[in-house]
Amino acid sequence: MTNTFDVLGIGNAIVDILTNVNDDFLSSCDIPKGSMQLVNESESNGLYKKLGQCIECSGGSAANTIASLASMGSKTAFIGKVKRDQLGAVFKHDIKSLGTSFTSVAATDGPATAHCLVLVTPDAERTMCTYLGACVNLTTDDIDEDVVSNSNIIYLEGYLWDPEPAKAAFRKAIDIAHKAGNKVAFSLSDSFCVDRHRAEFLELAKNDIDILFANEDEVKMLYSTDDLDQAVKQVQQDCDIAAITCSAKGCIVISKDEIVNVAGNQVALLKDTTGAGDAFAAGFLHALSNGKSLAECGALGNLIASEVITHIGARPDMDLKEFVAKNT
Amino acid sequence: MTNTFDVLGIGNAIVDILTNVNDDFLSSCDIPKGSMQLVNESESNGLYKKLGQCIECSGGSAANTIASLASMGSKTAFIGKVKRDQLGAVFKHDIKSLGTSFTSVAATDGPATAHCLVLVTPDAERTMCTYLGACVNLTTDDIDEDVVSNSNIIYLEGYLWDPEPAKAAFRKAIDIAHKAGNKVAFSLSDSFCVDRHRAEFLELAKNDIDILFANEDEVKMLYSTDDLDQAVKQVQQDCDIAAITCSAKGCIVISKDEIVNVAGNQVALLKDTTGAGDAFAAGFLHALSNGKSLAECGALGNLIASEVITHIGARPDMDLKEFVAKNT
Repeated sequence: MTNTFDVLGIGNAIVDILTNVNDDFLSSCDIPKGSMQLVNESESNGLYKKLGQCIECSGGSAANTIASLASMGSKTAFIGKVKRDQLGAVFKHDIKSLGTSFTSVAATDGPATAHCLVLVTPDAERTMCTYLGACVNLTTDDIDEDVVSNSNIIYLEGYLWDPEPAKAAFRKAIDIAHKAGNKVAFSLSDSFCVDRHRAEFLELAKNDIDILFANEDEVKMLYSTDDLDQAVKQVQQDCDIAAITCSAKGCIVISKDEIVNVAGNQVALLKDTTGAGDAFAAGFLHALSNGKSLAECGALGNLIASEVITHIGARPDMDLKEFVAKNT
Repeated sequence: MTNTFDVLGIGNAIVDILTNVNDDFLSSCDIPKGSMQLVNESESNGLYKKLGQCIECSGGSAANTIASLASMGSKTAFIGKVKRDQLGAVFKHDIKSLGTSFTSVAATDGPATAHCLVLVTPDAERTMCTYLGACVNLTTDDIDEDVVSNSNIIYLEGYLWDPEPAKAAFRKAIDIAHKAGNKVAFSLSDSFCVDRHRAEFLELAKNDIDILFANEDEVKMLYSTDDLDQAVKQVQQDCDIAAITCSAKGCIVISKDEIVNVAGNQVALLKDTTGAGDAFAAGFLHALSNGKSLAECGALGNLIASEVITHIGARPDMDLKEFVAKNT
């Protein structure tokens, strides 16, 4: 494949605001641990006031994946909506800083650039409250036909199903990609997100998705079953390739012909699991773009995830080319 | 002493933008390693474009000290100027989140909230390029007489000498503090900063400063000598108390009666020295506020500095009350 880009990500353009909290804090705020909740501006402000000192860094699920892909050397592009404000400038700087093409036009009015309050508990689990802000203004106009048709794989996040106008943008991108003979990858994002959009995600999985990413909870939620084996069988029928992450245990990679379990990597110091799934998808897609076997794709996914969870923040804090060279 | 606050910090209100660079990058940009340079908006933007992915967190030298003091349980206040923008909201949130009183009115027009591009090299040394932004609008009007006269110690940073109008604010605060019988502590901030303002800093040291903080380079620069012992003798004449930090070796604490060397703490993983001096001052002042000996003040300063340099960012990333309890 000789397209300009290996992977184009389309997703919510978000700046993360990370802080440490304890479990009691989540209970007292009635926030389900491990979830991604949508909050409005006033709810976000109310919660932010209760938080201790934070750090800010660019986030967004698909954007994190693209950042890790770029750091490994993949040719990448990203489409997402920020506002022309300080956090929008931060997001734009960071996504471009690794060589990713980012030409989405920033909104000059309307809501501020999106942010996500990421609450990290002592067990390194992250719980997220997202204010979608400017992301609600991503429309079909933002889907650049040239970029989509010149990307071997387009990678979409389930979270993009939350802001209503983005659904049409999402469908437009899928149509262009498939007409150009390119692959569509999709992350289920979060079991609560799957619960919100289950019927539509099932239709997507059956008809539109070539490569599906999910964790155990998400794929079970998608197929309304408590039985992981059952969910694996169903996803095998629906998608050409699926990768199910199983936390520390590693992942299950599924194609029409095989189901492969790939053991996870040992992590000496688990600090913050934010972005683990995003990093996994990056490793997987980078290997896939380079013609590796599905087991090798799963292994690289596991490896990149193991880097991101050793530090605060969802994006790599080192050159992943060097990291991969040292660890493979 | 029964004042409302143990320590009031007055300083530049800055959000740090941190990233990793290598030594060649500093050379290619002609930035002296380890320095704090002032840059204008266009220089800052030009440099920012060349940087890889960054993280943002609240900074500012005196503000960092106050944050660590608050985390240890000192009663604190801070005076500094932000603009009413997104990074200003970040700064305000973070300084207040630990219980510090912060009532400085944000500017509604003029330059944006200040930021500092912090370039961290593989040896964990930090090199800083600061855009002062809204800090240039700190004036005598911002010096709240009630707060100053109700603070046992006011803590001022040398960097505050850079934005011209802040000098008058600085002098007003010193006058109020001394009239109220309170102590004035001062950090020399940076040897380049001392070089810019040496004559005035010497006058301050002789006439106005009760407690002086400096590192070896700064105190030698102040007294225009290459001989540390010589500088120590001079500062002993000028100030009631001085604390000279000597990187990993620890610190020298100086009063009229004694000169005490306090050995530094072993650090397993040195990651980013940003804020080491600020953290030292916090530990020192917290112990001083609690009636400890000068050797104990130096030891607590060393301990708090040893926490801050094990992670990215200039402020503690854990509850320092717990950290101190575990390590003393």
